[in-house]
Amino acid sequence: MPTLSLNEAQEAVTLALRAAGANALMAEAAARALVLAEAQGLASHGLSRVGQYAAHLRNGRVDGNAVPELRHAKGGAVLIDAHDGLAFAACERAVSEGIARAREVGISIAAVTNSHHCGVVVDHLRPVAEAGMVGLGFANSPAAMPAAGGRHPIFGTNPVAAIFPRRGADPLMIDLSLSEVARGKLMVAAKEGRAIPLGWALDRDGQPTTDPKAGMEGSMLPIGAVSSPKGAMLALTVELLVTALIGANFGFEASSFFVDEGNRPRIGQAFIVIDPAALAGSAVYLDRVEVLVTEMLRDDGVRLPGARREQLRRRAQEHGLSVPDSVLKQLAHE
Amino acid sequence: MPTLSLNEAQEAVTLALRAAGANALMAEAAARALVLAEAQGLASHGLSRVGQYAAHLRNGRVDGNAVPELRHAKGGAVLIDAHDGLAFAACERAVSEGIARAREVGISIAAVTNSHHCGVVVDHLRPVAEAGMVGLGFANSPAAMPAAGGRHPIFGTNPVAAIFPRRGADPLMIDLSLSEVARGKLMVAAKEGRAIPLGWALDRDGQPTTDPKAGMEGSMLPIGAVSSPKGAMLALTVELLVTALIGANFGFEASSFFVDEGNRPRIGQAFIVIDPAALAGSAVYLDRVEVLVTEMLRDDGVRLPGARREQLRRRAQEHGLSVPDSVLKQLAHE
Repeated sequence: MPTLSLNEAQEAVTLALRAAGANALMAEAAARALVLAEAQGLASHGLSRVGQYAAHLRNGRVDGNAVPELRHAKGGAVLIDAHDGLAFAACERAVSEGIARAREVGISIAAVTNSHHCGVVVDHLRPVAEAGMVGLGFANSPAAMPAAGGRHPIFGTNPVAAIFPRRGADPLMIDLSLSEVARGKLMVAAKEGRAIPLGWALDRDGQPTTDPKAGMEGSMLPIGAVSSPKGAMLALTVELLVTALIGANFGFEASSFFVDEGNRPRIGQAFIVIDPAALAGSAVYLDRVEVLVTEMLRDDGVRLPGARREQLRRRAQEHGLSVPDSVLKQLAHE
Repeated sequence: MPTLSLNEAQEAVTLALRAAGANALMAEAAARALVLAEAQGLASHGLSRVGQYAAHLRNGRVDGNAVPELRHAKGGAVLIDAHDGLAFAACERAVSEGIARAREVGISIAAVTNSHHCGVVVDHLRPVAEAGMVGLGFANSPAAMPAAGGRHPIFGTNPVAAIFPRRGADPLMIDLSLSEVARGKLMVAAKEGRAIPLGWALDRDGQPTTDPKAGMEGSMLPIGAVSSPKGAMLALTVELLVTALIGANFGFEASSFFVDEGNRPRIGQAFIVIDPAALAGSAVYLDRVEVLVTEMLRDDGVRLPGARREQLRRRAQEHGLSVPDSVLKQLAHE
């Protein structure tokens, strides 16, 4: 596998997205995000997305001319309109506004409407931790999971992210989607001819299934669904935060990202930034985090969230990215 | 079972807590909250708690003289010190501050430190919905669940709540704890001599167990733990939000609520209030919520979150509360 430096990879992705019609701002922000994901070992949100984004640009599902616009702001609240562009430049703008406003009034919500796939949510929050603040991130995605008691997909798998800066150490970085498992686990089980546990998926008629193929045609289940509707309630909460409040589309209104044709998804993202200095103070905050980390690490099996990703990112920064030939060819082809 | 009006029940609880040493503000706020929980059918957070709170007052785990104090405020951020009192008056004060501040700057965080058990988290958010705003609520609790990969309890079951007002209808009220199941389910299984599924609990050595008794001596598992560490990451997020940011105690630093003796728990609560008017506007918000509700109700099996509680609450308001003799005796005894 050829090895590219992170800069080389960013340039290649930028070129590919530019060729598909993205303006420079959009292409560069997306390239930074995809390469960062790839560097952290998150291949499903890395370079493999370039082909998808390029197809969406070419088919008009993404407007390559869009420039994020600040549509409304009041104190700690700011709404950015991505205007059907790729999400990354709009999210960068939102988080930067969010940090400035949280510094002023202690907390902010910076939201992005008329948006598209935003990749690794917690990565958008890195500047928040660099500013010494706590960040929460939420997004919706095309419908994949039913409501509690329901049979058809309504909510996306709706990622939730959080970042907590530490004193002299990498921030704690939490990043998860609200499905019990990722759809990829169904694909693997189907390939291997294995049954899946109840609680992973429903079939197309909304019935619980242990058949991975039936699950792939049906819907994924929210976290903990085999025991209770809690996961569906969390998914509902995220769905409303990133749509109703900011005028974005629900997951069931957006076409899948994994098809080339379809509508402009117009989904939403929201970032909440909180300044510890406005509450108990930064010193107290940093002290308390270390007390918790120490207690967590008393158990051998505990790994701090984000630690593995940071390790991989540093390695990639030093040694470059090994990029599969198929991905390189696709980049050159775009 | 004797029937009491809600007012009679509130008076009885107030008297019992006053007799145990609570000042009038503390006793009345707690009485309102416990009776509201009982009226909604949430017995485990209702009148059954009076004996526990009274014991904590008598044993000094709660300071009956405490008056909530605004300790720090900046723009949308406000920190209330419960000063080791019962949590309810402090939470009322926090939410009222949070609403006023969100109206000013679009979003607020109102947090409570040096606190105690706060009951049904979403009930604190009712005034937020009445003000036409969206609310999120978080709390920690004495340690019950391990960190991801860990063996000993660190986090509480850490409830998460959300309220979303609707146009001309009851708000959507979401309220859940982050354990896969409530400890009560282990007690029932133990009584009936049934095994529990993997993913509910660890034994005292931190090993997965299907024995409910072993689980009760060990720790509860976070939501979805059988598949991934997502639930533990959500619990960590809530734990940090309601402690480090506001200078409160972690779950592993607080003695159980279910013992009479123990420390002053000094745990934390945090409420985030968001004004739709500061983002896409209240009209857009209310329209979008109805679109989602309509889509959810297309499936017969879907019940809106909070609907059953509201139905029970209205019935109790009209017909009064049936209070078990044992609880009445306890109230009279306190």
